[in-house]
Amino acid sequence: TVSRDLDESLLQSFMDQVESAKIQENLKTLASQPHMATTEGDKELVKLLLNRWQDPQTGLDSASEDVYSVFLSFPDPQSPNSVTVVDNNNAIFSTRRSEKNVTADQAHAEVVQPYAAYAPPGNPQGRLVYANQGKRSDYQELVTMGINLNGTIAITRYGGAGRAAKAVNGAEFGVAGVVVYTDPGDINDGQASEEKTYPNSWYMPPSGVERGSYNEYFGDLLTPYYPAKGNMLLGRAGQGRAGSGIPPIPTQPIGFEDAKMLICNLAGSVAPTAWQGSLGCSYNVGPGFRTAGQFPNTSNVQVNVYNQRVIKNSSNVMGFIRGSEEPDRYVLYGNHRDSWVHGAIDPSSGTAVMLEITRVLGKMLKEGKWRPRRSIIFGSWGAEEFGLIGSTEYTEEFYSKLRARSVAYINVDISVFANATLRAQGTPPAQSVIFAATKQVQTPASPSVSVYDNWKNHFNRISPSYGVVPSIGSLGAGSDYASFIHYLGITSMDLAYTYDRNKTSARIYPAYHTAFDTFDYANRFIDPGFTSHQAVARTAGNVLLRLADSLILPLNVSDYGEKLDELYNVAAQGDFLANLIANKISLDPLKVALGRFKSAAADFNQRIKKLKEEDPLQIRMVNDQIMLLERAFLNPQAFPNKYHYSHVIWASKSSNQATFPGLADAYTSALETKDWDQVQKHLTIVVQAVDSAASTLEAVA
Amino acid sequence: TVSRDLDESLLQSFMDQVESAKIQENLKTLASQPHMATTEGDKELVKLLLNRWQDPQTGLDSASEDVYSVFLSFPDPQSPNSVTVVDNNNAIFSTRRSEKNVTADQAHAEVVQPYAAYAPPGNPQGRLVYANQGKRSDYQELVTMGINLNGTIAITRYGGAGRAAKAVNGAEFGVAGVVVYTDPGDINDGQASEEKTYPNSWYMPPSGVERGSYNEYFGDLLTPYYPAKGNMLLGRAGQGRAGSGIPPIPTQPIGFEDAKMLICNLAGSVAPTAWQGSLGCSYNVGPGFRTAGQFPNTSNVQVNVYNQRVIKNSSNVMGFIRGSEEPDRYVLYGNHRDSWVHGAIDPSSGTAVMLEITRVLGKMLKEGKWRPRRSIIFGSWGAEEFGLIGSTEYTEEFYSKLRARSVAYINVDISVFANATLRAQGTPPAQSVIFAATKQVQTPASPSVSVYDNWKNHFNRISPSYGVVPSIGSLGAGSDYASFIHYLGITSMDLAYTYDRNKTSARIYPAYHTAFDTFDYANRFIDPGFTSHQAVARTAGNVLLRLADSLILPLNVSDYGEKLDELYNVAAQGDFLANLIANKISLDPLKVALGRFKSAAADFNQRIKKLKEEDPLQIRMVNDQIMLLERAFLNPQAFPNKYHYSHVIWASKSSNQATFPGLADAYTSALETKDWDQVQKHLTIVVQAVDSAASTLEAVA
Ligand SMILES: [Ca+2]
Ligand SMILES: [Ca+2]
Ligand SMILES: [Zn+2]
Ligand SMILES: [Zn+2]
Ligand SMILES: [Zn+2]
Ligand SMILES: [Zn+2]
Repeated sequence: TVSRDLDESLLQSFMDQVESAKIQENLKTLASQPHMATTEGDKELVKLLLNRWQDPQTGLDSASEDVYSVFLSFPDPQSPNSVTVVDNNNAIFSTRRSEKNVTADQAHAEVVQPYAAYAPPGNPQGRLVYANQGKRSDYQELVTMGINLNGTIAITRYGGAGRAAKAVNGAEFGVAGVVVYTDPGDINDGQASEEKTYPNSWYMPPSGVERGSYNEYFGDLLTPYYPAKGNMLLGRAGQGRAGSGIPPIPTQPIGFEDAKMLICNLAGSVAPTAWQGSLGCSYNVGPGFRTAGQFPNTSNVQVNVYNQRVIKNSSNVMGFIRGSEEPDRYVLYGNHRDSWVHGAIDPSSGTAVMLEITRVLGKMLKEGKWRPRRSIIFGSWGAEEFGLIGSTEYTEEFYSKLRARSVAYINVDISVFANATLRAQGTPPAQSVIFAATKQVQTPASPSVSVYDNWKNHFNRISPSYGVVPSIGSLGAGSDYASFIHYLGITSMDLAYTYDRNKTSARIYPAYHTAFDTFDYANRFIDPGFTSHQAVARTAGNVLLRLADSLILPLNVSDYGEKLDELYNVAAQGDFLANLIANKISLDPLKVALGRFKSAAADFNQRIKKLKEEDPLQIRMVNDQIMLLERAFLNPQAFPNKYHYSHVIWASKSSNQATFPGLADAYTSALETKDWDQVQKHLTIVVQAVDSAASTLEAVA
Repeated sequence: TVSRDLDESLLQSFMDQVESAKIQENLKTLASQPHMATTEGDKELVKLLLNRWQDPQTGLDSASEDVYSVFLSFPDPQSPNSVTVVDNNNAIFSTRRSEKNVTADQAHAEVVQPYAAYAPPGNPQGRLVYANQGKRSDYQELVTMGINLNGTIAITRYGGAGRAAKAVNGAEFGVAGVVVYTDPGDINDGQASEEKTYPNSWYMPPSGVERGSYNEYFGDLLTPYYPAKGNMLLGRAGQGRAGSGIPPIPTQPIGFEDAKMLICNLAGSVAPTAWQGSLGCSYNVGPGFRTAGQFPNTSNVQVNVYNQRVIKNSSNVMGFIRGSEEPDRYVLYGNHRDSWVHGAIDPSSGTAVMLEITRVLGKMLKEGKWRPRRSIIFGSWGAEEFGLIGSTEYTEEFYSKLRARSVAYINVDISVFANATLRAQGTPPAQSVIFAATKQVQTPASPSVSVYDNWKNHFNRISPSYGVVPSIGSLGAGSDYASFIHYLGITSMDLAYTYDRNKTSARIYPAYHTAFDTFDYANRFIDPGFTSHQAVARTAGNVLLRLADSLILPLNVSDYGEKLDELYNVAAQGDFLANLIANKISLDPLKVALGRFKSAAADFNQRIKKLKEEDPLQIRMVNDQIMLLERAFLNPQAFPNKYHYSHVIWASKSSNQATFPGLADAYTSALETKDWDQVQKHLTIVVQAVDSAASTLEAVA
């Protein structure tokens, strides 16, 4: 049995047992009330997860609750946040304190008022300016237009820059407070009326407000690199990234109904065309209000933030299935549990899928029909919405053993954004297992079309090795995979069903992070019948089973070569190359390293084919090489100022050059600073990482 | 065969075949001429190593030469360094340019003149002061005595502080140049005459000068964290630890004959008693020379340094034996090859031993009698004397795979300091395998006494678990194990035969780093008959075979508990504890973590006993836990300013508190700065490391 391989009939049986009705039921339960991190609703879901995973008929081997004591930020129920227009010390206008009640859900007592988590309290007042998306370049543009930003309040729309960035950038220019809203042009395909929005369609109602976390780093901000847990907490006082990680100035999100009152009354010149939106007026940039508008042109805008810093206990719920042959190899699967409000789609659509997968696997396990070759660990993460906190603390707590033993991490957060096609993000080795799985799953629309083929129709690219294939996106830091890939270097992937981009340009599904993300919304507008949920459950479960049961890990290492080439090619042409040459920086060493990597990977795949299946140590050897390939790209010295980012290929970057992140940022910065030594440094770091990856795959002795 | 275990008869056969005469022969060849790193003598030894390891009858599976292009420092043959006494712009005294020729060896054309490698060129001149050992506290004491150190030249004796520290500390106090000498009280048990020193005894002659590297960090100074190799070198310009790592002021070592002229003529008050030495006069502290001495009291001392910075190719020679069952597990064994002059003892006594071990193993291999279970890698490192460069570049180049696959590293540099007893340094898991080996080796003096028993007579401690046992020392950064333990977290050990401390108080064997460290010296005074060399070869080879062939790795993880307790106990009593309590820092979390670790280790050892030997994946699982235990103590974020130091238990420290290094340094510093948050931070880092180690040993699923 040490050489037993994946059982295709079991795989089929798993998929057959995945029921859309069960997922729907799960979602109804999970989204029945708000369950923001650490609230009563969240605690009830902790119990639900434990119950399910400890169920004698359909549970796992074991489950446990892991509690971390983490730094969160909540609005003050006694002093609601607001944005007001102030004239002669009188508030003559105030934004709504809550979203409009349209389906009773919005009136639930536990609906949290809209706020920007971690934004500092304060009541700055000033002339209002419209700063587009709050990018550095947006503020710069206002300055170029002759506007003095000092002491102003900037209203910005979601998109373009991260939430925190809008405040960080603004503060650099002297802005005193930031207001953020969602433009109907960005989220509603332009629709802005009550008639055309939820509950009458999937679009965001005029009162809808996207909540969110405005911190700069992921993980508990007070305990970087160590778990916010029991023994460690005494150290917290001395350890925070003191004063860092939280926005520098008060910030508050509002709905577009309120934003319209502010923006459509602005004075000043007309904003650039690209800045215009769908509020139904011409956007001026300010500063201040125009004469003959709704407000006296002497009036200011005030941002009133009363957020409170709190330390609260947040739980991860962990579920385990012990591997039979290789218990010390872990396949990880997770999603967060906490929402902003009811969170039907974010994250409960993913949790509903995870619970259906664990129900079917648990049943197979308890019936004695199956036990995986490798161990499987499920994580229901806490406090993701505040900054991927539960998953990051978990990786910090178990850094050594996760790094040594983890085969891959599968993340399914929002499982269905829309019901058109699969969307996958991941690192290159994940491609092969995702392709294998999706070829075996039918689309909801037609049993004769595979998820793979449908996906290929929506998102594709031409692969030098395979021709036209579905295109897998890169992992940023948008969900709980972040710490697994960036900090631990574990091959990771994120799966979901998503939009037909011919049908909507919505930045994300319109009820995202609002009080309208409810079971009713999901059931009527996102995935009626829950067949897309079912397809995601089958796909993710199929991937999970392949990773857990295949004798040889189903991760094709040679697929990294294509991605590395692609990143290399961006630097090896045009202005980028010309500037390197002008500064005596040669890409040749990188080219040599890439050649070495590709040849090592090809040889490795040849050696696998010749392996004797009876020799368990030979099998283990190649599996270790596959598993550790991703780890070879880690360099803890590469980005000393970027918390938790060690992966040389996927680290965050601010440059828009689509090459290796350290190289891209150093290059973009050198164009101004002339610091080409930094460019050479980051090139060297990439060469070393690629060499190291090649070494991992080359014959071991 | 996947479950084959160590063959005791093979082990015995190996030991029987180790010949003292062969080691003597090796040493004679290796030390026949100077072989400083990258010189002709070094290149010839590269060839010799390759020839031996590629020999068809007694060679290994393969051998290769790995070239790194590294930053070295050499004196200028055209402008020899010196220390002069200058009066009215006339040099009225100068130190010797070379050591006295006493056995013809010293007259070899390739003998490098004494110098302080990496000391910057310059000719500072000033009043001479005697600064004892050049510790911070020594300079501080001079200031307390009312001496203005600004612009002075400090003469210091070897010992107490590292070579570089004497200059770094001095520069902080305004010292302009440093002279270093070896006091006969520290090296010669007080003997200072020609009659009582080499070639008439093992003591250092009056003209002897200890050379050495005066850099602050180990590894090539221009390529921190990446290999100084081929593709990477283009990046060097932008990557040096610019201006750091090399001494801040000109520095020159001299012999005690010359030092006597300087020190015995000093003016000023009498130096403290602890500062007095054996030059045959009362040591005054200066500044300047006394009236009525050898020199006018107006004269200054000038340090003349003409060292040149050069980039040269330095080679590691690597030898490989492929493992039969687990080729992807590496047992590493190494020593440097480069010397300062003839280097009979340092390092050739170790190389002579390594060559005898590889001869016997190679023979067994080529005769088809043996192939190890795991792969064995031998390293003959280059440029160790300049700062452990070859071994560090190797660990940088193969960081990922060495970290993933290395079972242990055995270092035998100087194999015989003296012929009285074994001396071992290592981390706790090494204890069990060293004990097992030494019990099987006879002492040179008597076949009825084991190396183990003799060792226990010389160095012992009371172990809470085992009673009286030989005492194993800690690994600093004195030889090539440094990067393996501190940077990669690989269980490491260093073995040698050494002094009877009742017979000599010499800081180290007196010919160390001088032109007197010759075959004649070794043959007549260190180990006549080479039986101590033989005992070391048998011991190290026995350890190597056990690590390579044992089914279960012979490293007892529970021995770490004793060491952790010992470090904990230092902090948990007396002033240390009182100060922690006064600053609201609790050791309880650490105590809890230690309890968890010890219980996990004990349970782990119980589980091993119950393992089925037929299940290769179960065996591999526990072996991986053993192998990776040491890695769990690594924390790349723990010491951001200490290059290559990541191991939380063994990192370098400047405090003399014998507890965890980060905690010790933070505590000592907090006594002055009141920065108790740093103490809490380092306590948290230790707790996390111990928790992580416990996690590694706990049941995997
Ligand atoms: Ca943390
Ligand atoms: Ca280097
Ligand atoms: Zn989410
Ligand atoms: Zn979310
Ligand atoms: Zn040495
Ligand atoms: Zn040495």
